[in-house]
Amino acid sequence: MARAWHLKSRPDGMPTADNFELKESDLPPVGDGMIRVRNRWLSVDPYMRGRMNDVKSYVPPFQLGQPLEGGAVGEVVESKAQGFSAGDLVLHMGGWRDEAVVPAQAVRKLPDLGAEPQQFLGVLGTTGATAYFGLVDAASAKEGDIVFVSAAAGAVGSVVVQLAKAKGMTVIGSAGGADKCDYVRSLGADQVVDYRARPIVKSLSAAAPQGIDVYFDNVGGSHLDAALAVARNRARFAICGMIEGYNQREPTSLRYLMRIIAARIRLQGFLVFDYQPRMDEFYREMAPLLKSGAVKSRETIVDRLEQAPAAFLGLFRGENVGKMLVRL
Amino acid sequence: MARAWHLKSRPDGMPTADNFELKESDLPPVGDGMIRVRNRWLSVDPYMRGRMNDVKSYVPPFQLGQPLEGGAVGEVVESKAQGFSAGDLVLHMGGWRDEAVVPAQAVRKLPDLGAEPQQFLGVLGTTGATAYFGLVDAASAKEGDIVFVSAAAGAVGSVVVQLAKAKGMTVIGSAGGADKCDYVRSLGADQVVDYRARPIVKSLSAAAPQGIDVYFDNVGGSHLDAALAVARNRARFAICGMIEGYNQREPTSLRYLMRIIAARIRLQGFLVFDYQPRMDEFYREMAPLLKSGAVKSRETIVDRLEQAPAAFLGLFRGENVGKMLVRL
Repeated sequence: MARAWHLKSRPDGMPTADNFELKESDLPPVGDGMIRVRNRWLSVDPYMRGRMNDVKSYVPPFQLGQPLEGGAVGEVVESKAQGFSAGDLVLHMGGWRDEAVVPAQAVRKLPDLGAEPQQFLGVLGTTGATAYFGLVDAASAKEGDIVFVSAAAGAVGSVVVQLAKAKGMTVIGSAGGADKCDYVRSLGADQVVDYRARPIVKSLSAAAPQGIDVYFDNVGGSHLDAALAVARNRARFAICGMIEGYNQREPTSLRYLMRIIAARIRLQGFLVFDYQPRMDEFYREMAPLLKSGAVKSRETIVDRLEQAPAAFLGLFRGENVGKMLVRL
Repeated sequence: MARAWHLKSRPDGMPTADNFELKESDLPPVGDGMIRVRNRWLSVDPYMRGRMNDVKSYVPPFQLGQPLEGGAVGEVVESKAQGFSAGDLVLHMGGWRDEAVVPAQAVRKLPDLGAEPQQFLGVLGTTGATAYFGLVDAASAKEGDIVFVSAAAGAVGSVVVQLAKAKGMTVIGSAGGADKCDYVRSLGADQVVDYRARPIVKSLSAAAPQGIDVYFDNVGGSHLDAALAVARNRARFAICGMIEGYNQREPTSLRYLMRIIAARIRLQGFLVFDYQPRMDEFYREMAPLLKSGAVKSRETIVDRLEQAPAAFLGLFRGENVGKMLVRL
């Protein structure tokens, strides 16, 4: 028997524990080309909130009464697929459960980069790749740029801060509360603004008297508006996430949108999935930075499968510093 | 004596006739390197509204009690500058007046493209260049794209429609009222939506069942939101103007902004002034299209200097079809 979290009901606004149900079920047989994986680490991510709505998006919605999915790292316990044997550590999308039977072609063996397994769900996984490709590709950030990153204590944001510093940029990070701000400062950010302390447009203007060249947006809403207000000519915004809007239906209200014209600002939405063909480039860049300590991996770990929904809900209450993970 | 319109007071919201004052004054002497021009045609443009506010932007604000400025075509009546003689037709920025003394280096002789002089204030001037560079550069539009253009009966929009059709694109234009919609249809647009008839997001969804690849934004606000709602993957938006916002202080409210991520949309603000070095490319592309009739020049002409403020105010009431000009 395996246990998996199912979507019991679709959230209306902010999700609650009632939307989730942990159910036991028999695993399907391990057919040719399949492997059975015992999960060790599960990823919970803000984007999963979008999949809980019944709307078409870049990934299909979760189905009611079906198991949830998500990134996971586990150990192969049974294999009928060439190239995989019991004991292999693998990355796959059969998360939110303790054991999964998955087709080998949807599984990646952890590359040998001298890293911890759970880092492939974080700084060496989707999280780190989001930071890397958002910064260098979507925002075309380069040495000398002044970079503003929101949710800088979060999984993606904390990697953006460190990557940007490692690449010779000036970094301003935003976070909520003194502890998180201290953490962002410890990552090397040149300036940190506490968006809970006063309106972000005021604190950002003070922190960036010369304006910003790049904005890495994890938040949307008033953060995006503040970035528009202080953007320098030809600023580039990488639009990665808008967590402010995931649980609410209010439209985004932008007072400074019109500056996009006078300052020739570029806004570029992006999805990390598009960069799969460039993962080797990412590993090449990131592995040495991790090894040298220029980029540090920080995780908030919640233990036990039973706590997966609580870990997920915590993302929207700002309970994580760095990557939020569930350890089985 | 020369007569010039002065900025008497800064508009608060929508400008009124009271903000303008026509005054007589002596012209300065024509010094070395200067020419005196008798204006024949004056341009009035929405962007001038921004210069009436006392805020830093890409062009400095108009000064209270000083003459307004703007594009103009006139005839040289006196020259102390090499290369200019009486009778030459020139393009310059000493508009909003009947005669101006200007430095020759800020003046361009009308190139010989077989066009009418006033076309250099419209389809062969800033207006046409805005359409051209916005479409091909800011929006990277290409053959086969589905293009949505707002204010398609306006000066820039009407050129965008024709250029896009000439380049093999499918074009949806928006305009307000049946007459303007007929006009946009006559320009070759495949679909026309009347934003006064029903909410633009509904009419655009109906007109673009497959979505749009390009949005040429002259309007902002609900038009921009509708374009976000129907944008296809990797859509590119050229943000040219936001006339909806020029006279109001309400923030822009966007319900579909979050689609920028899932659809990897790019928004690019641009200013035509940046493309001065590429004007020869523009003339090369546009002159044959004008000659062949693929692009037609349409003007709304208001006679007499006294009517310049009325012509300008008319821009915000949608009184123009094509380029709004004042003829002296």
